[in-house]
This record gives sequence, structure tokens and C-alpha cells, in this order.
Amino acid sequence: MTTLLALDTATEACSVALLHNGQVFSRYAVIPRLHAQSILPMISQVLAEAGIAKTAVEAIAFGRGPGAFTGLRIAVGVVQGLAFALKCPVLPVSNLAAIAQRACREQGAKQVAVAIDARMDEVYWGCYSLKDGEVHLQGLEAVLAPERAELPRSAEGEWFAAGTGWHAYAGRIAVPVYGSDRQLLPHAEDILTLAQGMWRRGEAICAQQAQPIYLRDQVATPKQS
Amino acid sequence: MTTLLALDTATEACSVALLHNGQVFSRYAVIPRLHAQSILPMISQVLAEAGIAKTAVEAIAFGRGPGAFTGLRIAVGVVQGLAFALKCPVLPVSNLAAIAQRACREQGAKQVAVAIDARMDEVYWGCYSLKDGEVHLQGLEAVLAPERAELPRSAEGEWFAAGTGWHAYAGRIAVPVYGSDRQLLPHAEDILTLAQGMWRRGEAICAQQAQPIYLRDQVATPKQS
Repeated sequence: MTTLLALDTATEACSVALLHNGQVFSRYAVIPRLHAQSILPMISQVLAEAGIAKTAVEAIAFGRGPGAFTGLRIAVGVVQGLAFALKCPVLPVSNLAAIAQRACREQGAKQVAVAIDARMDEVYWGCYSLKDGEVHLQGLEAVLAPERAELPRSAEGEWFAAGTGWHAYAGRIAVPVYGSDRQLLPHAEDILTLAQGMWRRGEAICAQQAQPIYLRDQVATPKQS
Repeated sequence: MTTLLALDTATEACSVALLHNGQVFSRYAVIPRLHAQSILPMISQVLAEAGIAKTAVEAIAFGRGPGAFTGLRIAVGVVQGLAFALKCPVLPVSNLAAIAQRACREQGAKQVAVAIDARMDEVYWGCYSLKDGEVHLQGLEAVLAPERAELPRSAEGEWFAAGTGWHAYAGRIAVPVYGSDRQLLPHAEDILTLAQGMWRRGEAICAQQAQPIYLRDQVATPKQS
């Protein structure tokens, strides 16, 4: 049985999920600015709940973005350190895909248009279709003005709207949807779901290669960096 | 014999140092924007050179700032992950102190006024005196306009200038010094030196408590965070 750990700190939410013996143990909290203090205790808690040592973890999945600059740096740093010390590979999962996956699970959606508030009058945007229990990206992930968001060219059928971008720029995304969850944040449970497929397909990479995906070419890094 | 690992990614420099059996093994490179890809291989290299496993490391020291936002996040994240997985405590060391320590070692300085370029027309500033082989902070560390930099009130004797702030704001720091090294960047070897004293004095903290010290109250975080 596979034992996978997943963690996410890409948005206001901070979450951890552990798959062990076919069971999932998880923690989730919306705690802006407390991710760095909270992520390790959350990992300890799920390991304790599963009754296993860290060394049992075979691979570590994480929300690789798009998302907040600081949050992504926290996730990548912690994952690099953990994976290096535990000698295990890592599985970078899209935060847009994680939200789409959750909308499918919770809302029964089959096609999900995800928008995360990217600030600076933009959204992180991605359209996903469910197939065999896993969401698949249609077209490309992008950062763009809400007005420029559109469905993939080949899109048919009904689409569900998910993510905080739909809330932050209410009315500015001109994509027709039949329903929405505009508060939905990424959750490590869904990162874990998507990571299982990647793990089976041999898509894990080594810790050193882990990096955040900002989508913005030119990230607005702080002036003192 | 103590085995301590030190790492630093707070500035353009990226470095690692390992103390084992009284010997120091280290790597140092000035590689802006490549810290996240380089830090784990550098750690592997010093461990291999010392011929020990990661699990032999008793505590992990790191440059906790002040310094670049991204670099500090990388260091803290990697250190948190490593220390958590290896079940060892961490030793946060000032990057200003690390530079002062190096100036004492390389230049024979006894009192060092350190300035790191903090961008935004400011420097990170700290004054250090050498005592029993270790530098000690005089007054407080601060971020301030170069013109506002001053020696501690009780300061006597001659001071040496160290750090990139002296170069970036040449002529604007009105503190009398007898000599300078205006290119000096922090190096994990000196973080290791200072960490040894902290380790002996029982000043280690747990991984979860590790955090970057920016000095700026309001860090200019990127807009999308």
C-alpha cells in the first residue's frame, strides 16, 4: 500500500493530507500568515493519527501554484527539506487542478472553470474536465484580466465555476456557468488524489527540482530581494 | 564531538558548512536566483565529504536574516523540513553577525560596523564587537537610511566597515572607519562558528519556531500574496 503525504500553503488555506493503508488523514485551516508556524504541527498530527513514522512516507505531494508568493515559497522549502531528509521524491500538483478536483467531488461537477484571485486585477485561470475520477487541464493555465478569461476552444456542455477569483471579480468573468462555489480554496486532500495518479504514472521528481509555479513571468518580488 | 550543519541563502551568496569531528566542510557560491536549486546538492556534497549520513546532524543553523525576502523564505522552509524530518533543533543566526564574524577572521577586525544593502534606499545595520572569538551585537540591528547609521553610544576605539551596504550607498554612511570590505557577503562557515556558541549555551529552538527576521515591520510582500 502506498503512503503519500500532501501539503498545501498556496492560499489563505493551509492543509495537510496523508494516505496510508488506503485511508486518508487530513488537517485544513484558513490561517493567513500562520502557514510557516502551522504546517509542521499539522504534519505531525496526521502522522500520529495514522500511527506511522515520517520515514514511512514514500513521496511528498504539494500545491506548486499558482498562488501567493510567500505561501508557495514556504511549501517548496518545507517539501525540499523533508524530501531530502527522508530520501523521497516529490509530486508537484497544480492548485487550480486541486480546486477543480474538489468541485467535482463536492458539487458533482464534470467540467470546472477555476479562478483564483491573483491580485493586481488578475486571476489565475484554468479549465478542467473530469475523466476516470481525475481532472485534466483543457488548454493552458494562465494569469489574466478577469475579462479575458474564456473556456477552451473545444468546450462543450456545462461548466461549474470554482475559486475565489469568481468572488473577487464578481461579474467581470464573462464565462457562462450553471453553478458556482466562489469560496473554494485548495485542499491537500485533492492534491493527494491527483498525486496518486502521478505516482502511479511515475511522474515524481527529485526534491532539488521542486519549484513554485507563479504563472506571472515577472513576479512582483519585494524590493529588497 | 558535535555535528552541526549550517546554511545560508539570505543574500546573493548561497553557502553550506558542516562541522564534524572538529573539521569544517563547506561550499560557497554567489548565485542569485539559483539558491533553491543549489542548496540541497551543496548539503549533499558536504555530507559526502565528511563521510556521514544526514541523520548524524545534531542541529541545523541558518542565516535568519536580515536579507532578501525570497532567500530567507527558502532558508527557513528548507531548514524547517530538514529539522522536522531529522528530529533535530535549529539555531537561527543573524546575517549581520555572520558578516562581522568573517571580517574579524579575515581582516583581524575587533569591532565591525556591518551594512547590508536593503534596497529601497536603506541598509540593514548592526555593530559588533569581538570577544572570546565571537562577535556580540552592540545596540540593536536596524533597517534605516544610510545617513541615519551610527555607532553604538558606548563605542570606543576603531571600527571596521563590512558589507554591501557600504558599497551600495558609498559616502552616505557617515560613520568613521579605519578600513573596509564592501563586498563581504554572509558565509555559512561563520554562521557555524556563531551557532557553536549558541548550541553550547542551549539556545537551540524547535523547527516549527524558525522564522525569518526581516527587520522591516512591513515587508513589501508581492501584491499577489
